[in-house]
Amino acid sequence: MSYHNEDTIVALATAQGIAAIAVVRLSGKEAFTITQKAFSGKDLASLPTHTVHFGNFRDGDRILDEVLVTLFKEPNSFTKENSVEISCHGSPVIIKEIIKVLLKHGARLAEPGEFTKRAFLNGRFDLAQAEAVADLIHAETDNARQAALNQMRGGFSKEINTLREELIHFASLIELELDFGEEDVEFAGRQDLQDLILRIQSYLRKLIDSFDLGNVIKNGIPTVIAGKPNAGKSTLLNILLNEEKAIVSEIPGTTRDVIEDEIVLGGVNFRFIDTAGLRETQDVIEAMGVERTRERMKKASLIIYLFDLSQTSLTEIAQEDEQLKLLGIPYLKVGNKLDKANPELMQHLTSDDFIFISAATKANISELKEKLLGFFNIGHVKTGDVMVTNLRHYQHLQQTHESLERVLNGLNEGITGDFLAMDIRQALHYLGEITGAITTDTLLDNIFSKFCIGK
Amino acid sequence: MSYHNEDTIVALATAQGIAAIAVVRLSGKEAFTITQKAFSGKDLASLPTHTVHFGNFRDGDRILDEVLVTLFKEPNSFTKENSVEISCHGSPVIIKEIIKVLLKHGARLAEPGEFTKRAFLNGRFDLAQAEAVADLIHAETDNARQAALNQMRGGFSKEINTLREELIHFASLIELELDFGEEDVEFAGRQDLQDLILRIQSYLRKLIDSFDLGNVIKNGIPTVIAGKPNAGKSTLLNILLNEEKAIVSEIPGTTRDVIEDEIVLGGVNFRFIDTAGLRETQDVIEAMGVERTRERMKKASLIIYLFDLSQTSLTEIAQEDEQLKLLGIPYLKVGNKLDKANPELMQHLTSDDFIFISAATKANISELKEKLLGFFNIGHVKTGDVMVTNLRHYQHLQQTHESLERVLNGLNEGITGDFLAMDIRQALHYLGEITGAITTDTLLDNIFSKFCIGK
Repeated sequence: MSYHNEDTIVALATAQGIAAIAVVRLSGKEAFTITQKAFSGKDLASLPTHTVHFGNFRDGDRILDEVLVTLFKEPNSFTKENSVEISCHGSPVIIKEIIKVLLKHGARLAEPGEFTKRAFLNGRFDLAQAEAVADLIHAETDNARQAALNQMRGGFSKEINTLREELIHFASLIELELDFGEEDVEFAGRQDLQDLILRIQSYLRKLIDSFDLGNVIKNGIPTVIAGKPNAGKSTLLNILLNEEKAIVSEIPGTTRDVIEDEIVLGGVNFRFIDTAGLRETQDVIEAMGVERTRERMKKASLIIYLFDLSQTSLTEIAQEDEQLKLLGIPYLKVGNKLDKANPELMQHLTSDDFIFISAATKANISELKEKLLGFFNIGHVKTGDVMVTNLRHYQHLQQTHESLERVLNGLNEGITGDFLAMDIRQALHYLGEITGAITTDTLLDNIFSKFCIGK
Repeated sequence: MSYHNEDTIVALATAQGIAAIAVVRLSGKEAFTITQKAFSGKDLASLPTHTVHFGNFRDGDRILDEVLVTLFKEPNSFTKENSVEISCHGSPVIIKEIIKVLLKHGARLAEPGEFTKRAFLNGRFDLAQAEAVADLIHAETDNARQAALNQMRGGFSKEINTLREELIHFASLIELELDFGEEDVEFAGRQDLQDLILRIQSYLRKLIDSFDLGNVIKNGIPTVIAGKPNAGKSTLLNILLNEEKAIVSEIPGTTRDVIEDEIVLGGVNFRFIDTAGLRETQDVIEAMGVERTRERMKKASLIIYLFDLSQTSLTEIAQEDEQLKLLGIPYLKVGNKLDKANPELMQHLTSDDFIFISAATKANISELKEKLLGFFNIGHVKTGDVMVTNLRHYQHLQQTHESLERVLNGLNEGITGDFLAMDIRQALHYLGEITGAITTDTLLDNIFSKFCIGK
């Protein structure tokens, strides 16, 4: 498939903000000629691909900035079109002026995801891989990064395409049978078809099953740290945050520095939901039932419930446990202030049911972390691990699986070739939508409009 | 001057945040070998400078990302050292992991401004130019950008260095006279010296005088929009904001989108200071006297004071005018709601004293803008305009001027060569500090620590 678009598009490719450098990116037939109109010094079209050139970026007589221009000649670029990256000083004013000039010279602003869309339409990769580019950029943990990268580098695309080709082959044979009408020939061996379908289903099942974990890896685990006032919720959060921070203290500004309520443990993003609003009331769990809180709780996959071992009683624990059960969300009961624990109370509590920690002395914090990770059975994603993290893929995989189930049932019931072919074609359609072998403008718009501009 | 530093430094060079791409930059002797340890595919050291190479960035067995690596071989780089730019997907997680790996392989994190500091120490440009790099990045308006760029591209550096050379020549001649002791020779013509000093002083005066305007261009004009409740302050601000926004609506995300209280008019940043806190009281200007507000007012260079022409009276106007005068800050009296103005009131007001607008119907808004700009007599900074925007330069220029004044006085009074030489040396010292011909570690630390990391 080749995509002929006369437009040359432009956008800022790096993040907004003040920085040493920023990169403005152009792609399209006229990328060199448009850049040339503002770039003095060299004749860009005559220079080799993948080379970098220093010069002045001008708006008429005015020099806007001193820039480095990098050339990528088609098809040796991300989009497979002529592309230019202009590396300028990272001032929002300069970026704005440079883009203005390029628009004046004939470029147009890129739509969200349009660079990646062009890469897809020009055959750089399939749709599932294109979508992984966005996931890669938005990865918030190392596991999410690895899962997205694996997908971008091929992931299940190749395997699905191979299986799809085999299935198309069968569909064609069956449709050929139909041409022979009443003659009762059988080009497509029914046993071979059944074997193929079982093989495809088994692969699909593996992918479908990977989605739960993939989803957790991509989106994190919404976790509420709850408990009565003064149970030590903030102290615990700070300890979890600080420990992780210490590891990466030499790396400037990660997302976590800004969003103080996310904890990355073992490569998984625990999204802490503040229960500060509940602090004033004594009936914490009951209060969770309040409408506004319930809305937030719906998003929680896990509650870390803190008890103050120096203050609470067996009766209280029993009551709160009762109410926690009613919420129907997985929870960890954590006894805090182990160092000041009431000895009498401790005689009646066991570590089967409780994790005993002291946020103040940092005792047993690593045990708590292990338990948290154990809850979701998450290891380290490795280079090459294939995993479904995208809801759209997941849905199409399930739809394919169901269509194939109908084909299998049809085979068992000995239905006629035309119905068989119809079900296979349906399955092929869903499979094709995953990798983009079958697309519609609406589908593409849907997918790429969620990208950021510049990608 | 050459700067031998064995360390290879690394930092993120683009802005923090999620984006299509991010650039991690290395500089130093080992930039290629350190990158090579993580980059598979090509032998970087053997490749030509200013070329771009696609490959996998690895942490041992794990592939962290697919990246583009750009090579700059010494002395053909910003720092004049071997430099590498790694263009990766713009995810904070990927950036963090890539930097971690490079640290592991022997790079160290760059200090703020260390790339530019190395460029200065390796003779790429002088100190005043190096400082302009930071100003360029932080430029908030097109005028500020142009002023900084002009300075970075040479600005007054060359002229100052030439004048300094001439002055050094005289100082040497006078010091030579001293060697001859009692012999009463005169190698340095006193009249020529006086001519030179007057020439230098005239140039310095021009630079010193440019500072007021340069400062406004660099730092903007802190402006308070004040007035009684419902005078139309927010409407006016919105109109000023929106008009400017419309012009650049096709350009995504400028600073102004985030900081909604800055208006760039005619290339000048009007920093709007919210007076919302005063809205509840009727005695607006009196309330400005309140301690907390006074603190903010100190930063204001201009007050736009809005009167509601449909509501106010001559007496009120007189009272508020009286109080405005007491503040001692320049102010513009703006009569708003011209479309609903009280006709009787209007008979007693003249446009000598007032600007009449209607924020609602947008009447006379451009007149208001012109008046605002006229207040500060600001035109468009052009390529090549030389202007002092840096407080440090300003102070040294003044100190130089004063030292030279002492030399002149000495000449007039016929003081002895040794005192003359001392005053000239003092002037040379201040001049040298501007361009960095004379530096101390403290001075450099002071300057570059204000840079961002990665520059």
